[in-house]
Parts: sequence; C-alpha cells; structure tokens
Amino acid sequence: MAIHGGAGPDSDYIKQNMQGYEDGLKEAVMTGYKVLEAGGSAVDAVEASVNYLENNLLFNAGRGSAINHKGEVEMDASIMDGEKIKAGAVSMVKNVKNPVSLARYIMNNTNHVMLSDHGALELAKDEDIELEADAYFINSHQYDLFIEERDKKSTQELLKQRIHGTVGAVAMDENGNVAAATSTGGLTNSLGGRIGDSCIIGGGTYANNKTCAVSGTGDGEFLINGVIAHSIASVIEYTQSTLQEACDLVIHEKNKHVEGDIGVISVNANGDIGISFNSERMHRAWMSTDVPLQVKIYN
Amino acid sequence: MAIHGGAGPDSDYIKQNMQGYEDGLKEAVMTGYKVLEAGGSAVDAVEASVNYLENNLLFNAGRGSAINHKGEVEMDASIMDGEKIKAGAVSMVKNVKNPVSLARYIMNNTNHVMLSDHGALELAKDEDIELEADAYFINSHQYDLFIEERDKKSTQELLKQRIHGTVGAVAMDENGNVAAATSTGGLTNSLGGRIGDSCIIGGGTYANNKTCAVSGTGDGEFLINGVIAHSIASVIEYTQSTLQEACDLVIHEKNKHVEGDIGVISVNANGDIGISFNSERMHRAWMSTDVPLQVKIYN
Repeated sequence: MAIHGGAGPDSDYIKQNMQGYEDGLKEAVMTGYKVLEAGGSAVDAVEASVNYLENNLLFNAGRGSAINHKGEVEMDASIMDGEKIKAGAVSMVKNVKNPVSLARYIMNNTNHVMLSDHGALELAKDEDIELEADAYFINSHQYDLFIEERDKKSTQELLKQRIHGTVGAVAMDENGNVAAATSTGGLTNSLGGRIGDSCIIGGGTYANNKTCAVSGTGDGEFLINGVIAHSIASVIEYTQSTLQEACDLVIHEKNKHVEGDIGVISVNANGDIGISFNSERMHRAWMSTDVPLQVKIYN
Repeated sequence: MAIHGGAGPDSDYIKQNMQGYEDGLKEAVMTGYKVLEAGGSAVDAVEASVNYLENNLLFNAGRGSAINHKGEVEMDASIMDGEKIKAGAVSMVKNVKNPVSLARYIMNNTNHVMLSDHGALELAKDEDIELEADAYFINSHQYDLFIEERDKKSTQELLKQRIHGTVGAVAMDENGNVAAATSTGGLTNSLGGRIGDSCIIGGGTYANNKTCAVSGTGDGEFLINGVIAHSIASVIEYTQSTLQEACDLVIHEKNKHVEGDIGVISVNANGDIGISFNSERMHRAWMSTDVPLQVKIYN
C-alpha cells in the first residue's frame, strides 16, 4: 500500500506544517492498510486512504481544496479496479464531500466512466452521496493563497499556469488484486473548467492486475500528454523491468524533456511498491508485509 | 491520411443515406489530403478533415450532434501533435462551431490540455473562435431520435447506456510528423455531464512520431478503460508488430472480452495506415501516396 499527497516545489507552508503533513501521510496509509488487514479489497483500501486525505484540511483534495479564479472549489477524482479493468471518474464536481467515492459509485453502478459538473452533482444527490456546503471545503490557507493570486493575472497568464496539488493511493489486497485512486482540488486561481490528470484514466490513474496500479501527481498536463500511468503499465507488460525500474524509466528517461513536476506511486500483484518523482518533494508514505511504515516528503 | 465517421451497429438511417455518407467520407479524407499535398502539417490536415465532418449534418459532431437528456448539444473533442507530444481537448462544450479547433487553440496557446463547459466557451469568446446559436447544431434526424428516446428511460437506465458516435482523423505529413484528432456530439438522451473517450488523451486520441497516431470510436467507456489509443502506440513501441497488426492485437485480442463496439484508425511516420474494428460497421476512408482513395462503411 502506498499513498501520496502531491509533488511539487517546497514551500514555507509545508515547512511550517511538517508535523501535520507527516501525521496525515502516516494516518492515510494506515487507514488503507487496516482495510487490507481486515480482508477488504484493494478498491476499498484506496478509497479509504483517499477519503482520509480528502477529509484532512492540509491536503488539496476534498476539504482544503484550492480555490479557482471564480472563487469556487471544483474537484476532480478517479478510481480504477485492476481486477475488472474498470474505472470511474468525476471532473469539476462541487459540494461532494468525497469525490473519489462518487467516482467509485460511477464505476460500480453505471456504464459511464466519467461524469462532470452538474451531471455528477445530480447523480450524487439522487444516490444520497454525502454533500457539504461550499464553506466546508474552504480553509484559511487556501483562501489566503486565492486572495494573494486573484488580481495578479490576466486570463492569458492563467492559461500559462502549471497546475498541481493532488492526493492518491495504490493498493494490493490478499487476493492479489490491485487498485489506484487519485483526487484533487486543482490549483489556486486556475481557470474555471480546467480539467487535470487526476480524473484522466491512463494519465493520472491506472490499474490492471496483469501489470500494476499507478496514481500520479505533479503538473497535470505533463501526466496527460505523457499518458504516464499507462506508460508505466506498458513498460511492465512488454519488458523485464521491475516496478521501480519502470517508474524510474518513465519519469526520469522517457519524460526527461518535461519542464515540470511529475511523480508516481505504484504497486503490482506481487505487492512490490514503486515510487519515483522528479520534483523537490513528493509527500508520500508506504508499507507492506515486507516493509515497515515509511513516511517521506523530500528526496 | 485516414478518417472515420464512427463505429457501431447498422441502422435504417445509415442505409437510407448511404450516398450522403459515402460522399461525406470521401470529401473528408480529400479535404485533409489536399492540405498535406499543399505542404500543410499533419495537425493542419486532421483539423481540416474533422472540421469538414463537424460541418456535415450527417455526422454526429459539431452540426448534427446528438441531443442529450436535457435537450442540449454538448460536444467533446481532442487533438494531438505527434512531433511535440502535446495535446488539447475540450469537453461538454456548447455553441463552438468546430470543437476540434478550440482544442487546437488550447494545445497551441495555453499550458492546459483540457478545458470544459463554461471555461471552454469563455475562452472561445475571448479568442474570437467561431460560435453558432444552439439551433445551428440541431438536425431533424437527431431531434426525432431525441423525441423517441426522451421519455423512455429513467436516470438509472440512462446510466446503463452505452454511448457512441464520433468522427476522427489521423495524418502523416511530408516531414514525417503524425497527428490525430477526434470529435463527437455524444449520444441521444445521454445524461448531462457524461464525458466520453473523444476528449481523453490516451483513450480516444493519441499521437507520437516515434510510434503512431490513433483516433478511436465506438462505445467510449471501453476506449477509456482500455486506454485504447495509447495501447496501440505501446505495442508499436515494444514489439515488432506492423501498425495493422498492432491495431488488430489491441482490438481483437487484448480487448476481446469487451462487450461493445470499438474501432480505430491509425498512421505512423512511414505513412502506413492501420484500421481495425469489432463492430458491424465503421464509416471510414483513407488514401496515401501508395493507396488510392478507399471509402468503406461495412466489413
């Protein structure tokens, strides 16, 4: 089981809240791991870990999401079941407490993969998926960032912004099934309607028992153009690489031209864990039957 | 150069309009091919072909789009440049005459890949991208289908629907650069907010000079879960398969469990063309310096 809380540059806010981040990362991976120990599925475990991070104010997903250019919180999330090779995703959803759980509902109960905006919200209302008021999602740090950025940039400048800030989880269960999930609140002062990698199957999330499960983070557009999550699965499918080698190959070799941050966590059906990133930091934690709990933020 | 006008089951409407479809497919491929002959880029050519199909009332993209459950036209499109390995996409966009051209604008002029709904429309307005009134997009055939379907299905039944109806193009230019583009009007009576494969990089559209350019069509959810377009590129990257073998492997072998329609057109930097589908029909046409114009609808 591995989880991440985003990759990118360091910041004063991260340094000031180091203990909170470390506690949150630890709790997130333990939450999913306990689900696995109790016999839960990989899908159950990644949902539980991501729910924990969505509910934690320090992480940019669910509660604590970034505030976009319109002063609104719009969230993206996705989940994929590596046994059934089936995914669910939501984009630009508002008011849903746990976007990844709505993505799971879509995966399990519909023939759609991806629902957006009002369509996703209507489904959540119809199916009694937990909603919260707009105010629930806001924290004062994100509000301060929004106020600081709001009047600085023209639309043209907004269109040039790189965007990151994500949480995610990957897990392998006792039946050897793998799953991946990713969730995000987007970027401070981003253009309304911008969709990032966190809801793109193949880009930010992918899972297939035959290869691996991957959750990505970083500057979303590079994860989409590089089809990063599925690229790692393809390396596993067609070469003799280990999971760690496949992650390193895709992040540091195949995408070394990328002038931005990309990072991934991954597991395979043997329970191996692969983690790779090219940024200053990637908030992350992992543990398995072989590896005791690890919590790291920097290289 | 190859183009498609969607894969799926046969219908009386198709039979009754055979001549119109054949003329449209021929004109679409010729439109892009003329761009290439005049020294235009692969990106220019796929945009020109898809624009033609978006403007043709018989095809479900741009004008002639399907009408969703709310009685609205929401369109998805994407484009990818195989030289720069860079993409642009729009989802759930209204009133934009040629969604693929807005996707190209996003690819060329922003650091975003994907914009949705109001965000995409606002950008189109700001940048003087051609808009049309709601009524422009409606044709009487799509309206009849909408009226027939509208009151038949509950939300739960809508969520079980399989969705298809797409146009797309792939091209290789005189510099050996490849590109792919896909555009769709969605499905009659679909839930508002449903996003299909046509705007998903890796799923419905992918291009990379080192491997190939692919545009997919069929039941969109299978193209997303199977990351179909990028899967074909991965077969080319890691095996000795020809482009046609790679398309057949992904459609007929790796996804033979899929209970739905999937089809692809593809080109590589040598100018080879690969076409494969598992459905009753895929509207398609292709031509190259080696192959005279071909127009086909059935197997």
